[in-house]
Amino acid sequence: MEPAPPEFDLIAQLWAPLTLGAAGAFGLKDDVAQLSSAPFGHVVTCDQIIEGTHFLPSDPLDWVAKRLVRRNLSDLIAKGCKPVGAFLSVAWPKSRPYAHLADFAAGLGQDLAELCGACPLMGGDTSTTQGPLVASLTLMGVPLSKVGQPVLRSGAQAGDLIFLTGTIGDPFLGLQVRLGLMEGQGLESAVATALAPAPPPLTVAAIIAAHANASIDISDGLLADAGHVASASGLALQLDLERVPLSAEAITFLEAAPDPVQALLGLVTGGDDYQALTCVAPKIAEDFCSSMKALGVQVTQIGVCYQGQGLEIYHHGDRLDLPARTGWQFSGA
Amino acid sequence: MEPAPPEFDLIAQLWAPLTLGAAGAFGLKDDVAQLSSAPFGHVVTCDQIIEGTHFLPSDPLDWVAKRLVRRNLSDLIAKGCKPVGAFLSVAWPKSRPYAHLADFAAGLGQDLAELCGACPLMGGDTSTTQGPLVASLTLMGVPLSKVGQPVLRSGAQAGDLIFLTGTIGDPFLGLQVRLGLMEGQGLESAVATALAPAPPPLTVAAIIAAHANASIDISDGLLADAGHVASASGLALQLDLERVPLSAEAITFLEAAPDPVQALLGLVTGGDDYQALTCVAPKIAEDFCSSMKALGVQVTQIGVCYQGQGLEIYHHGDRLDLPARTGWQFSGA
Repeated sequence: MEPAPPEFDLIAQLWAPLTLGAAGAFGLKDDVAQLSSAPFGHVVTCDQIIEGTHFLPSDPLDWVAKRLVRRNLSDLIAKGCKPVGAFLSVAWPKSRPYAHLADFAAGLGQDLAELCGACPLMGGDTSTTQGPLVASLTLMGVPLSKVGQPVLRSGAQAGDLIFLTGTIGDPFLGLQVRLGLMEGQGLESAVATALAPAPPPLTVAAIIAAHANASIDISDGLLADAGHVASASGLALQLDLERVPLSAEAITFLEAAPDPVQALLGLVTGGDDYQALTCVAPKIAEDFCSSMKALGVQVTQIGVCYQGQGLEIYHHGDRLDLPARTGWQFSGA
Repeated sequence: MEPAPPEFDLIAQLWAPLTLGAAGAFGLKDDVAQLSSAPFGHVVTCDQIIEGTHFLPSDPLDWVAKRLVRRNLSDLIAKGCKPVGAFLSVAWPKSRPYAHLADFAAGLGQDLAELCGACPLMGGDTSTTQGPLVASLTLMGVPLSKVGQPVLRSGAQAGDLIFLTGTIGDPFLGLQVRLGLMEGQGLESAVATALAPAPPPLTVAAIIAAHANASIDISDGLLADAGHVASASGLALQLDLERVPLSAEAITFLEAAPDPVQALLGLVTGGDDYQALTCVAPKIAEDFCSSMKALGVQVTQIGVCYQGQGLEIYHHGDRLDLPARTGWQFSGA
């Protein structure tokens, strides 16, 4: 096992460049960082990524870091917030060469710069572990809504239309291939996507903040997350699954599947899509859609909210039973 | 292996009570939390604790959680800040019973309530791992100084007196005993302390904010951390090691040591003391000390700052060479 480099060298070489010169990071030379004052207070998300649970040991480390950023970023975007600072803990396996930590830092820096709108890394902690790689990111943002609050799961109103950004299911299909559970032919793009699915562009956050009554990122699975909104808002959410936006690869996959409805249920319970599900009042839905299209972002209406409770799913007008497992569970992978 | 409980049960039973009803935590039922606006922006620290690196697999989990809180809290106190919100990531080993996660939560809640001034848990992430337990805490605070900034390592002035709160070395002695490297007789209190050394009380933060030009918590080791202040402030720090405050147990230990100076060097390079080292201008030093004493907190002057660079250590007037290792290193434990 190679000797560990001095911690200060690691900080100076790998992490300090990611502060992007933010004054409050104090060059990562102190024990704390200071964020600029936010008029409405900071909105914070905190998610981790664990080798063997959230990624495979052989995954390229720049993509592992991107996956960590995107897990957190998709929360902020769906809540109508813009990231302003990141804090990172890394438990680095003694069995991995330190040179590979530079790959991790490169992926992290690229996503913080490009997807997060030049969000600085403000601090954190790098230590060693005898076990698998674990990294936790705390991403702080500011709300973009006029009222200065994040768009919660709980604000949906009866009559709201339910929209999805982007497409659903490719990360699930790609993961099945990567785990050797499915043939990869015709799913090359899904396999690449599965390493670190991209959330919608950050510019979407302001549109969500201005239009959505409720919003959530699809991380557990479309059905599970729609169920969270139904439960938090005290409403029924009705989804028409044939409207769920899919990639060309996913459509071809479904067409070839022995039981296309069952296969579709796999896609809407797979999770890690990082797209935003938003509930928008009908009278501003057209403005919502045209604002999204002006950014080049695909939005698709997949259902409606109404008085009642729980999630109801339909396929070409036929009501389907909810699957026993609507998304990722704590005991998973 | 027992089946995992549903994640929402874990959140409701273990984590939600630790929000202490903070409105911005949204009952831990959303993907983000919102902190109240802080006039000068939030001050943030982020440190993790790793089984096999920072604690022993057999350590009681309530104390493991306390150690995690205290690692972070001591940073905020030394910087003259008060915690206002905490975010927790836990990678929970599949091999550990879930009932033990309640012990971890209990220790966390106790320290957040009692040592951190009723600081709410605002969010985080619980996942499972095939490896050792890893937990990361992001602790957000507000600066208590009039200028609204944390007290940095870099503000020391020539002529400043150097003070330490509490005593140094018991966590190191206790750890040596716990690792079986030293006899435990006469070190019972140090052994108990070593599980989760306590920082000074939170009330100290306001005094540090009002008086100190520079400040740092002793986590790497007294000599290493004093060296950080010297380096960041561009000054020389001179420490008189015979003045370093020790517990009765540590004094007895030193008296019995074959080479007391060498043994003392062990104590001042051991780390994890979580006490505050502060640099205070001479003209307000008396007020600083009397304010500390009014809180029942022991403070001891151990040296001075002057023009120059680096750390100089003396013992009863004799200059000592700096040991090769002045504190904890990245490759450690």
